[in-house]
Amino acid sequence: MPDPLRLGIAGLGTVGIGVVKIFQRHADMLSRRTGRTIEISAVSARSRNKNRDADLSAFAWESDPVALAKRADVDVFVELIGGSDGPARDSIEAAIAQGKDVVTANKALLALHGQSLAEMAESKGHVIRFEAAVAGGIPVVKALTEGLAGNDIGRVMGVMNGTCNFILTRMESAGLPYAEVFEEARQLGYLEADPNLDVGGIDAGHKLALLAAIAFGTKVAFDAVELEGIGRISIDDIHRARDMGFRIKLLGVAQMTGRGLEQRMSPCLVPAESPLGQLQGGTNMVVLEGDSVGQIVLRGAGAGEGPTASAVWSDIIDIARGTRLSTFGQPAATLATPVTAKASAPAPHYMRMELLDKPGALAKVATLLGEAGISIDRMRQYGHMNTTAPVLIVTHKTTRDAIDHAFSQLPRTGVVIGDPVAIRIEAV
Amino acid sequence: MPDPLRLGIAGLGTVGIGVVKIFQRHADMLSRRTGRTIEISAVSARSRNKNRDADLSAFAWESDPVALAKRADVDVFVELIGGSDGPARDSIEAAIAQGKDVVTANKALLALHGQSLAEMAESKGHVIRFEAAVAGGIPVVKALTEGLAGNDIGRVMGVMNGTCNFILTRMESAGLPYAEVFEEARQLGYLEADPNLDVGGIDAGHKLALLAAIAFGTKVAFDAVELEGIGRISIDDIHRARDMGFRIKLLGVAQMTGRGLEQRMSPCLVPAESPLGQLQGGTNMVVLEGDSVGQIVLRGAGAGEGPTASAVWSDIIDIARGTRLSTFGQPAATLATPVTAKASAPAPHYMRMELLDKPGALAKVATLLGEAGISIDRMRQYGHMNTTAPVLIVTHKTTRDAIDHAFSQLPRTGVVIGDPVAIRIEAV
Repeated sequence: MPDPLRLGIAGLGTVGIGVVKIFQRHADMLSRRTGRTIEISAVSARSRNKNRDADLSAFAWESDPVALAKRADVDVFVELIGGSDGPARDSIEAAIAQGKDVVTANKALLALHGQSLAEMAESKGHVIRFEAAVAGGIPVVKALTEGLAGNDIGRVMGVMNGTCNFILTRMESAGLPYAEVFEEARQLGYLEADPNLDVGGIDAGHKLALLAAIAFGTKVAFDAVELEGIGRISIDDIHRARDMGFRIKLLGVAQMTGRGLEQRMSPCLVPAESPLGQLQGGTNMVVLEGDSVGQIVLRGAGAGEGPTASAVWSDIIDIARGTRLSTFGQPAATLATPVTAKASAPAPHYMRMELLDKPGALAKVATLLGEAGISIDRMRQYGHMNTTAPVLIVTHKTTRDAIDHAFSQLPRTGVVIGDPVAIRIEAV
Repeated sequence: MPDPLRLGIAGLGTVGIGVVKIFQRHADMLSRRTGRTIEISAVSARSRNKNRDADLSAFAWESDPVALAKRADVDVFVELIGGSDGPARDSIEAAIAQGKDVVTANKALLALHGQSLAEMAESKGHVIRFEAAVAGGIPVVKALTEGLAGNDIGRVMGVMNGTCNFILTRMESAGLPYAEVFEEARQLGYLEADPNLDVGGIDAGHKLALLAAIAFGTKVAFDAVELEGIGRISIDDIHRARDMGFRIKLLGVAQMTGRGLEQRMSPCLVPAESPLGQLQGGTNMVVLEGDSVGQIVLRGAGAGEGPTASAVWSDIIDIARGTRLSTFGQPAATLATPVTAKASAPAPHYMRMELLDKPGALAKVATLLGEAGISIDRMRQYGHMNTTAPVLIVTHKTTRDAIDHAFSQLPRTGVVIGDPVAIRIEAV
């Protein structure tokens, strides 16, 4: 039997403790599956005295994760601290410098510094693995990097922030406005300390940028992700979209087009009956499309102690078995610099606006949209509420530019009240 | 750059040609992703002169797959011949004896001889990989062997025969009887030469047995799979089940219970709104349940040139990258001999029977079921058709033994016409 594989675990929050628990529960199984003994040499966290749901007395303690990363009895540095800079980054850099392999669940750090860290590690023959950083327990990094590696990937899509999906599905099922469900999510502990990471789409955007790098063989380009959060989604739009056969999801889409790489994390309508449309609560779903394999859909828990720790162990087990893969599926130094598409590919859009109860109001809007080159697929006018009537429109394929232009002209019709809404409909 | 990896491809049917096409279309991409050149040295098939949808002139030709397996310029023997014995087995054994790695899509061969072949290969330090043998393009072998390797797996389920799912969904959507849709499937070329491999559940049973071996660390035990095909599913049951909120699927279930390993491939009812219930046509779905990760659902094309070839390439790429895994996730020699559970775990069942239009008929049946220890959850009686009335029953958890016993007693009620039907309802 080869030498034991010795781990140092930095960060003892939910995920870190989950990783320890799997080790304590399944040491024999892990050894049977990897052909070697796995040990935890040392752990590290900010506070030693915090009450934690695991017995850590068998492991050495380091208060400084950088010191942990440098320990001679650590082969794999497992970074579960979080944060794009600070101790997480410092300790990973120290680990690489010391010749360790790294396993991390840190999407923010990799989305911002993944390229340089991977180059650094790979130049020394070490690996950085991050299955737990994307979609929790779903083995999507592995599916994309390895399972679908024979495919030219056309598009990657996903609902990858469980909190946003919880908020949107809860708004629909309970008929509650955004602000109220947001507060509920906060009280349930579903929100990050900075809630904008969740509801602003940033966290999910990090994940999308990482998948795009693997899918298209390009450097991680988080800055190029078009980000829009769910804060402006109204209960009205959720209900109206449903009437038209759609659900609203915070959907990430990355695709390589003739105009360059497109990456969006934004609210989209998807058919209510599609797998993405039916996704309820905190569950995640990722859709991978390859030229040979067609469409592969993966579904599972996107967060939580067990699922995320399961993903961390997947990476540790790979390393224990001797599997040594490039972080992004090919050497980081060979990743291309992506050309960012200037605008999203045309798509049908959902529009909602309030029209004055005046003869010819609808015709005026339809004419204006037509002049802007926007063709209408379906339109539905609701009964008048006081002096206005809500109108829903599903357009044929059009661009956001065309819509913005049309919306800027709407005031001159004199029949539109308030701000019109437009949301992209993604073909899934 | 390391030496090129040289392939020998035996079998040039749909899958073999698909594998060649991916190579010809994506040689650069494959080399970028694996860090080495991949070459096809030679190919082999029964007839050289058959018209094939790929230019094979660049590859050496062998008419005998055993000769191909022995070629000095072949590092990886790719077996796409099919069949549990004969040339497929002979050539794989020859390849292993000659020190080659093996990639195969052959579920029948592995279900019957996987244990001995894996032991043979592993004793010489070689690998046998088989992603394409289970659920076509879905990277489920990888997900289970690697992605979920930190989990104690409780249950593996799946719809893994697209032809059966096509037949069942087509029966429902078109309202056609089994025999008619079976004929349609035959004409569409969806059926194996021996259709019982499909509709008898054998093909899907092979796949289930392979997944069970990985999931539970046990030797492949295809003989212990409880097999029941779809031939006895009537359009009536499909409609009645739908009325009660279910769909009928040919569902594979493998689970480790206190009474031993349970493996079933049989028609089951699943909730119509569940992911499995909504699966239409030839698509496959596999559900993996682990103690940490919870439930992971994978969905994609289960057959066809592109998807299956994509899975074959996943294995080739792993080997090219230096990933060397045991066939069943741990050395074959360490797999335990499974204890087979004598009977399936209790479950709710759906029952359908025709009752004579006589006062007290329903009460007689209910009493008899009660005496057999079968408790009724829901019951629905339909309007009388001539002199009989169909009755549907959903039971609480019960065993097949209890049902068989009750059914054997039904004649003495004097009110049941024809054979009653009972189908297991699987909690998904």
